[in-house]
Amino acid sequence: MTVDICLSPVLYPHYQQENDLVVVADIFRATTTMCTAFNNGAAAIIPVADIEEARRYRAEGYLVGAERKTRRVEFADFGNSPFEYRPEIVAGREIVFTTTNGTRAIEAAKDCDRLLIGAFSNIDVVADACFSSGKRVVVLCAGWNGRVNLEDTLFGGALLERLSKRDEVVFGSDAARIALELWGKANRSPLDYLKKSDHYSRLTASGVEGDAAYCLQQNTAPVLPCYNRENGKLTLLR
Amino acid sequence: MTVDICLSPVLYPHYQQENDLVVVADIFRATTTMCTAFNNGAAAIIPVADIEEARRYRAEGYLVGAERKTRRVEFADFGNSPFEYRPEIVAGREIVFTTTNGTRAIEAAKDCDRLLIGAFSNIDVVADACFSSGKRVVVLCAGWNGRVNLEDTLFGGALLERLSKRDEVVFGSDAARIALELWGKANRSPLDYLKKSDHYSRLTASGVEGDAAYCLQQNTAPVLPCYNRENGKLTLLR
Repeated sequence: MTVDICLSPVLYPHYQQENDLVVVADIFRATTTMCTAFNNGAAAIIPVADIEEARRYRAEGYLVGAERKTRRVEFADFGNSPFEYRPEIVAGREIVFTTTNGTRAIEAAKDCDRLLIGAFSNIDVVADACFSSGKRVVVLCAGWNGRVNLEDTLFGGALLERLSKRDEVVFGSDAARIALELWGKANRSPLDYLKKSDHYSRLTASGVEGDAAYCLQQNTAPVLPCYNRENGKLTLLR
Repeated sequence: MTVDICLSPVLYPHYQQENDLVVVADIFRATTTMCTAFNNGAAAIIPVADIEEARRYRAEGYLVGAERKTRRVEFADFGNSPFEYRPEIVAGREIVFTTTNGTRAIEAAKDCDRLLIGAFSNIDVVADACFSSGKRVVVLCAGWNGRVNLEDTLFGGALLERLSKRDEVVFGSDAARIALELWGKANRSPLDYLKKSDHYSRLTASGVEGDAAYCLQQNTAPVLPCYNRENGKLTLLR
């Protein structure tokens, strides 16, 4: 199988191919939080790119998760911390979701053949789905304001490592090699490795460094959220 | 000093800040070749983004280096191999130059405060210039058709390592950490490390793998080419 990793949504047009399966990853914290919400019973997530659209949904009675620059937007029910999306609040509900980078990455790749939400929380089920799809797989890192970040790159490396253990893997570009190399350095203790990253500093400054540790735990929310182009919603394939 | 690395020209708008010093790097082979041409006596290099513009210069009597997809364009005097730019041909001449990625990277950053051409060939003089400038330094990797590549990333890591040995360095973003980490893995034998890269395979397929070894040698052409916004030419600062 062929696998690649695109380190920023801005670069996606240069990686895009027909029939790709794209795994969108925003480890700190959007895609981790989405997995948690689904694992706690959410019926669907509606990703929207801008705050005003989220506000209109809120007025219609939807639950809204909205974050900018690591903080909850004032009118929203939730920010971007996975711990906020508790079963008693989210079970059976559709949640509108907008975050600094994660929802923009979904927007960039929404016309691909299959778009899955990936995080360390669901890495094994995502690897299974990639493996059984028979498609070229591109990990699309959400990054930070268009820039490359460490935590999404590491997730890409971790996923490629899993895939390369199960099948002969052809790398689509050097970015896949870079991600795999970094994961090889970080895999013994990703949290320690990421303590020098930009976003860990931002989370610490916002008093939510506990989120970072949770976001790096593997297989805590073994769900498979998939984007449906017809209705613009994320729902579970399983 | 603050340093950062931008892994593709496509991402440059997301890294750009006022007063930046930008070091453009296209290790295989454009910026290496430019350093060689200057070291062999070229008076100036005029980077142009498209083939037709290069053809018009050729009709006016300029020497032209033009490469697409690792091969010389038919009407050109040179391709993109540093070995072609011999002293007896280039000394005292102005050379028009267009390559797949390198000249596009220059185009992307040409409005920055100071644009230098960097390669392993001139890494120490570039490090000196960065250090004494007092400016924020951004290494701009030419990449490959918008995508990230390994050799330019490694050069970025090598330059940041040099700067961090001379001064307290603040990283502008995680990309700087990524590049430095990779250089730490590759620095004992960059050529062996790069044998698994995409572009090494392309060079080998074109029969010019000898170029790759040359492009990784350090300080073979200790010149300091700088872009002049007024006339669109690269000339030597020293």
